[in-house]
Amino acid sequence: MRYAVLGTGEVGRTLGGRLVELGHEVTLGSRTKDNPLAREWATAEAGRAHAGTFAEAAAAAEVVINAVGGRVALEALGAAGAEHLDGKIVVDVSNPLAFEDGEPRLDPVESDSVGERIQQAFPHARVVKTLNTVDVQVMVAPGRVPGEHNVFVCGEDTGAKQQVTALLAEFGWPARRVLDLGGIRSARAVEMYLPLWLALSQRFGNADFNIEVRRPG
Amino acid sequence: MRYAVLGTGEVGRTLGGRLVELGHEVTLGSRTKDNPLAREWATAEAGRAHAGTFAEAAAAAEVVINAVGGRVALEALGAAGAEHLDGKIVVDVSNPLAFEDGEPRLDPVESDSVGERIQQAFPHARVVKTLNTVDVQVMVAPGRVPGEHNVFVCGEDTGAKQQVTALLAEFGWPARRVLDLGGIRSARAVEMYLPLWLALSQRFGNADFNIEVRRPG
Repeated sequence: MRYAVLGTGEVGRTLGGRLVELGHEVTLGSRTKDNPLAREWATAEAGRAHAGTFAEAAAAAEVVINAVGGRVALEALGAAGAEHLDGKIVVDVSNPLAFEDGEPRLDPVESDSVGERIQQAFPHARVVKTLNTVDVQVMVAPGRVPGEHNVFVCGEDTGAKQQVTALLAEFGWPARRVLDLGGIRSARAVEMYLPLWLALSQRFGNADFNIEVRRPG
Repeated sequence: MRYAVLGTGEVGRTLGGRLVELGHEVTLGSRTKDNPLAREWATAEAGRAHAGTFAEAAAAAEVVINAVGGRVALEALGAAGAEHLDGKIVVDVSNPLAFEDGEPRLDPVESDSVGERIQQAFPHARVVKTLNTVDVQVMVAPGRVPGEHNVFVCGEDTGAKQQVTALLAEFGWPARRVLDLGGIRSARAVEMYLPLWLALSQRFGNADFNIEVRRPG
């Protein structure tokens, strides 16, 4: 499969690297054509790894992964170009987090979410929110954490959620551990989990954890 | 121990009933002296179960449990009277939830929380936020859900959190399953988990579930 990973931060490079490892063709997209992190990444990964602008990455891809921060997601996807997103699966793994005066704050929050904003801004994209509830190292290697812990998918397009569930299985998340929370509106629920994730991360002193939803039967 | 449980809804009556069952003296507090639900509850439980106003309940208690909704918590505790809360443990199990046009909404949210507001309004109370992340039936009978699933405590007073952890053990939550998230500010984190709880509850069609935090070692 041909993937665009938008964002050259740790999340983008880690997801991109794992996808290349799995045999996919990946273009790491950035604001500018000559982003040194993206160039370096493409050189290190070699073969199936490429670097380009957001638009070049999206144009070449069958599936687009938003790996820039939630607060700049619309801008990055806008630069990628609606014409390069139409009809494609857009996987949003972002959180709308920023630290203000040392305090973590989400924006949007509660009455809206990044996932919903992306779907609204790009109505012909098939947006699936997932993986934002775990650290990037856990995203691509869930075996770092013991147990039948879960990830979530939210989105309007059932077929897109099925395809993303298959991608998650490649990462190491079997389908039974992927909980479908319904439409893209439930992106609010998974984005608002972030403060609890941060509190747990602070308590444990690391990011190697996740939640397992337990219930009878 | 002598408990006040403020609130005559399902949460208050269930927590109160379990405390009586455990051998404690409980006054179920309500806005008015002659609340029929509270009278009926006290009659049914008999012996160690009493009904009274918020102020009567708090005055008689060593520990006060806030079991009214998060949006009316300050009002109920105000009616209980600061002089009846000073120096006492105030356990807040509430969520600031209301449905507006069919949509669940939290208020306060993100930059504030019910737990913090209570501690700020009653600076001499020893506020501990806990149990708001599970259904009331799971609160008092965690064995309804399999596994080593967790609850959280947040608060400024370490001794108060220890005493509440002992109470949780009476309910069936061994100390190893009680995660201390630090000061009362982290009440934001556990209150903002509610939308994910609601999404899961909608998916499962019931409230018999909880999360287990998994990590290596």
